[in-house]
Amino acid sequence: MSTPIDFDRYDRIRPIRWTGDTLELLDQRKLPFVVEYVRCTDSDAVADAIHTLTVRGAPAIGIAAAWGVVLAARRIEAGDGREAAQQLEPAMQRLNAARPTAVNLAWALARMHAALHAAGGDWRAVLEREAQAIADEDLAANRRMGALGAALIEPGSGVLTHCNTGSLATAGFGTALGVIRAGVAEGRIGRVYAGETRPWLQGARLTVWELQQDGIAPTLIADAAAAHLMKTGAVQWVVVGADRICANGDTANKIGTYQLAIAARHHGARFMVVAPSSTVDMATPSGDAIHIEERDPAELFGVGGVRTAAEEIAAWNPVFDVTPHELIDAIVTERGVIERPDAGKMRAAFG
Amino acid sequence: MSTPIDFDRYDRIRPIRWTGDTLELLDQRKLPFVVEYVRCTDSDAVADAIHTLTVRGAPAIGIAAAWGVVLAARRIEAGDGREAAQQLEPAMQRLNAARPTAVNLAWALARMHAALHAAGGDWRAVLEREAQAIADEDLAANRRMGALGAALIEPGSGVLTHCNTGSLATAGFGTALGVIRAGVAEGRIGRVYAGETRPWLQGARLTVWELQQDGIAPTLIADAAAAHLMKTGAVQWVVVGADRICANGDTANKIGTYQLAIAARHHGARFMVVAPSSTVDMATPSGDAIHIEERDPAELFGVGGVRTAAEEIAAWNPVFDVTPHELIDAIVTERGVIERPDAGKMRAAFG
Repeated sequence: MSTPIDFDRYDRIRPIRWTGDTLELLDQRKLPFVVEYVRCTDSDAVADAIHTLTVRGAPAIGIAAAWGVVLAARRIEAGDGREAAQQLEPAMQRLNAARPTAVNLAWALARMHAALHAAGGDWRAVLEREAQAIADEDLAANRRMGALGAALIEPGSGVLTHCNTGSLATAGFGTALGVIRAGVAEGRIGRVYAGETRPWLQGARLTVWELQQDGIAPTLIADAAAAHLMKTGAVQWVVVGADRICANGDTANKIGTYQLAIAARHHGARFMVVAPSSTVDMATPSGDAIHIEERDPAELFGVGGVRTAAEEIAAWNPVFDVTPHELIDAIVTERGVIERPDAGKMRAAFG
Repeated sequence: MSTPIDFDRYDRIRPIRWTGDTLELLDQRKLPFVVEYVRCTDSDAVADAIHTLTVRGAPAIGIAAAWGVVLAARRIEAGDGREAAQQLEPAMQRLNAARPTAVNLAWALARMHAALHAAGGDWRAVLEREAQAIADEDLAANRRMGALGAALIEPGSGVLTHCNTGSLATAGFGTALGVIRAGVAEGRIGRVYAGETRPWLQGARLTVWELQQDGIAPTLIADAAAAHLMKTGAVQWVVVGADRICANGDTANKIGTYQLAIAARHHGARFMVVAPSSTVDMATPSGDAIHIEERDPAELFGVGGVRTAAEEIAAWNPVFDVTPHELIDAIVTERGVIERPDAGKMRAAFG
C-alpha cells in the first residue's frame, strides 16, 4: 500500500446510529428509494426491527441487539451487574429470538451478558461501553479485512460480488464490500459488478445503492450473466461474504455463490471469501454437515408485491449454498489471509 | 420407445390459431394470469402483435407472419402470384420489420414469397397452404426432436431447462420443452426444474405455466440456484433451446445458458441443445463471430412495473450468451442427433 486508505471517503453509510439515548436504524426495507431511520427507544422495538428485517446482515443484527440491551437497562434498577443481568434476562431472550438463526446475534448478546456479570455498581456504563466496543471492533475488523483483501488484487482488476456484504450489513465498511471499497480506494479495482441476487435482490436493491453513495459506480448484472461476463475477461476476482466457514474452509453463503465459484475457476478468475473470524465454525468439519435453510417458495413467485408466476406451482428456494474449499483462492478474516484454504491451514489459524 | 407418445395429452396449448378468416394469438404479455387470444384480421395487426411480444419465440413469430401475409392477401386483387407478390410487398416489409433480429421471421416470409412467385391464378390457395405447411412442419419437427432427444435420457432422470422453448414459442410441443414433454410421456423424466430466467422471467411466467397446463408439475428455481441443485444429484440433463448454432456447434441461447453448461460439466450432468435445423448457421464458423445483442439496462431495474433498483445506476444486460461446443453433449434437430458436436460432425450433417 502506498498511501493509507481514506476510509471515511469510501464509507458514508451507517445503518446503526446510537445517539446516547436512542437507537436509530436505517430502514432497509425501504431502500433504495427512501432513506429513513427508525428510532428505537426500548429493546422490544429493536427486537421487532431485527425480526422485520428493518436491520439485516449478521454483524449489524448483533450490534443492534447489543444496543437493545442498553435500552432495556434504562427500564430497570439494580445494585450490580449480576442483579441487572437477572432482570434483563427476558429482554435479552426476546432479542435473541428475533432471528434465531443469526449466529452473531447470540454471540453479541453473550458478550453483553458476560460483561454485565463482571460489572459492579458501574454496570450501566459497562453495558454501554461493551455495545460500543462490539460496534467499533466490527468496523475495525472490516477495515483490516478490506486492506488485507485488497492487497491480493492486481491493479486494473475487475471484481464481481454477490448479495449485500457492505456497510448496510455491518457497523460500516462491510466485509466483501470492504475489500472492494479498499481496492477502489487504492486504485487496484477498475470495475465493480454486482449480481442482483434473486430472489431478494439484495444486490440490486442494496449493494448498488450503497456503493453509489460512496461514489463507486458498480454495474448491475443478472445473476445468470456472471459466466458470460467472466468470459469477456472483465472479472479477475469474485469477492463474497460468508455465513459460515467450516473447519476445512468450505463456505456457506447466499444462494448463487457456489455457481460463481465454479464459473470463476472455469475462467481462471480468482475467488475470495471475506468474513470476520466469528464466522469461522471449527466445530463443523465440512460443508456436508451444514443444514441449508430453505425459505418460502413464494419468494420466487413475484417481486415487490407483484406476482409473476402462475398459481399453484412448486418452487425450491434454498437460502444458502456451500462452496467447497477447493474452489476458494483466499479466505480473509481480520486475523489474516489464508490462501488455498484446507483443513490444515484452517486448524493452524483458528484451531 | 415402447409405445408411441400420446402427443395431444402432453401438448394442449396453441399460441397461434387460424380460424379460416382470423388469426388468433395467445397474448403472452398477459400470461400466466389471463388466457386471452388477440384477434387479428389484417396484416398490420399481426405485425403489431409481433412487435409488442403478444406472440414471441422465433418459430411462432415466423408462423404468425405467414398468416399475416394470408390476411394481407384479402385486401388485394391480382391475376397471378407474381402480381400479388408485388402488391403484397409493403405488407410483407412491415411484417419483416416487426422484429428485425428474428431469423425465422425473414425465413417464413421468404418462403411465402417464393410460393407466391410460383403460383398462378390459385395464388390465394397457395398462400394459405404454405402458411399451414410452415406451421405443420414446425409442429412435426418439434415432435420428431422430442422423440430423438428423449431417447437420450435415462429413465428416472431429472432435467433442468431455461427460458421458454415450449408450445408458446412454436406451433406447438416446443423444442427443448418438447424433449421434456416426450421424456415425461415415456416415463424417462421424473423431475422437471425450470430456471426463472431473469430479467424477463420467461421461465417463471411461461414455462412453468405451460407445463402445468399439460399436467407436468415443474419446480421453479432461481437461476443462481442451478449449481446447488445439480450438487444434490437432482439433475441428469440440462435441456435448452438455441437462437443460433454455429458451424462448429457453438450455440447462442438465452443469457444464463452458458453458466448452466459450465455447472453441468462440473457435476457430470449432461447438456442438450434442441432446435430445428433452420437454427443452424453454417456461415458463422464459431461463437466468437456472434454479435451478442444487449438490451435496455432498465430491464434489470425492476419487475412488472415495480422498480427495485436505485436510480441512475448502470447495468449490463446481454440477451444471449454462447455455449462452446465442448460443453455440449448433444445437439438435437429434426434431422437427427449429433453427440459431442464439433466442426466435422456439423459439416457432415449440415454442410
